[in-house]
Amino acid sequence: MPRFRMTVEYDGSPYVGWQRQDNGHSVQSALENAVLSLTGETASVRGAGRTDSGVHAKGQVVHVDLTRAWVPYKLRNALNAYLALASERVAVLDVRAVDDSFDARFSAIRRHYLYRIITRPSRLALEAERAWWVSKPLDHEVMHAAAQRLVGHHDFTTFRSAHCQANSPMRTLDRLDVTRTEDLIEIRATAQSFLHNQIRSFAGTLKLAGEGKMTPDDVEAALKARDRAACGPVAPPEGLFFLRVDYPGDDLV
Amino acid sequence: MPRFRMTVEYDGSPYVGWQRQDNGHSVQSALENAVLSLTGETASVRGAGRTDSGVHAKGQVVHVDLTRAWVPYKLRNALNAYLALASERVAVLDVRAVDDSFDARFSAIRRHYLYRIITRPSRLALEAERAWWVSKPLDHEVMHAAAQRLVGHHDFTTFRSAHCQANSPMRTLDRLDVTRTEDLIEIRATAQSFLHNQIRSFAGTLKLAGEGKMTPDDVEAALKARDRAACGPVAPPEGLFFLRVDYPGDDLV
Repeated sequence: MPRFRMTVEYDGSPYVGWQRQDNGHSVQSALENAVLSLTGETASVRGAGRTDSGVHAKGQVVHVDLTRAWVPYKLRNALNAYLALASERVAVLDVRAVDDSFDARFSAIRRHYLYRIITRPSRLALEAERAWWVSKPLDHEVMHAAAQRLVGHHDFTTFRSAHCQANSPMRTLDRLDVTRTEDLIEIRATAQSFLHNQIRSFAGTLKLAGEGKMTPDDVEAALKARDRAACGPVAPPEGLFFLRVDYPGDDLV
Repeated sequence: MPRFRMTVEYDGSPYVGWQRQDNGHSVQSALENAVLSLTGETASVRGAGRTDSGVHAKGQVVHVDLTRAWVPYKLRNALNAYLALASERVAVLDVRAVDDSFDARFSAIRRHYLYRIITRPSRLALEAERAWWVSKPLDHEVMHAAAQRLVGHHDFTTFRSAHCQANSPMRTLDRLDVTRTEDLIEIRATAQSFLHNQIRSFAGTLKLAGEGKMTPDDVEAALKARDRAACGPVAPPEGLFFLRVDYPGDDLV
């Protein structure tokens, strides 16, 4: 069966998360429903990352097998039309035909995430579901210095949800940068793969560093403790964006 | 009574518009309800601009008279707490005590608006209520050239809603700039005051110029026709943001 790779954007706010679940509507079901409406096929849409409820994507990558050899842009347009009809907060940005060896999850060589924090005295209105609101300023330079202690190959037990299903807590974090533009603090994280809640655990801990409640040494000690109790409070989902996935052979920009 | 000037941000999507109305919940009522909850006073909150349903604000300015001489930041925090309790999509960014001569609407010397268009083949998910989706590329340089024909002191009958209540169609447009960053086209408009639907009428007409359906000469002819029928289709409200209002004596940035 022809396999298609698709890049997908979504507003995670109204969904129980990426993954199909019994307790509510997921992004995966939204896409599978659109495929069913279009083709009559009950196809499984497999994603590169299982984002939690409230987490957004600008560039989730998925694959799906269909019986027909669709012209990619027509498949994109038709799926978008069905997503619009169903009032879904999901858009298919790009479709490509790929061979059977491509797997959105297992072929990925790098995943890129962004965590957004807005620091200002007033609650958020326009960005309410698009950032974590922190009412006091944070020292982003301390946050960045602390973040560098986490980069590299480590046991990330401290920054891993109790529900994480990964076999190993070992991961290689390629990049964890903290930058600020006016009241917006952006944390950019890159790795081949992440543990469950890893980036939100980083963000919650780095916020403590930005408040002066943890030094970079404390953050390094928390990592080395390999103890979930050493982690700061997990940051809320609405600040997290799944930006992009890299695969072998992609023209990387 | 002490008068307060407040800067207000809102997501216009769930509201019938700025102004209190019988047919639904407005931003003005949201603020007046918060004032009532906080102070027990039925106060009128007066805005610098009456935005339509779906139109957003990053810097609407309002004034309100209260019996108590509130410390400004405490008033801001308390109103935000009540707005949060009521799940409103409104935030008070700034409060200042002003004298009785200040009127949010009549003292304004310049109003600044932004109209956002995203041009891409796929529908919008994350920006669904924050921009006008146009599926084909637009030539923003032609749009900018056409926009310059509208700058200055003119009779703007062509770009005025049939429901506009202003006494005169004469306005002085200080600035109408069109810029592009990747797939985002931004139209920035500045004037002392605007007619009803004026910026959305500009945006709809400039879009035709960007598609090559109107030349800058055609846009100038439409202005000179002083005929509503010469206007392009009015652009949708979700692309429009009320950015800022200038008053005499403000430190302008």
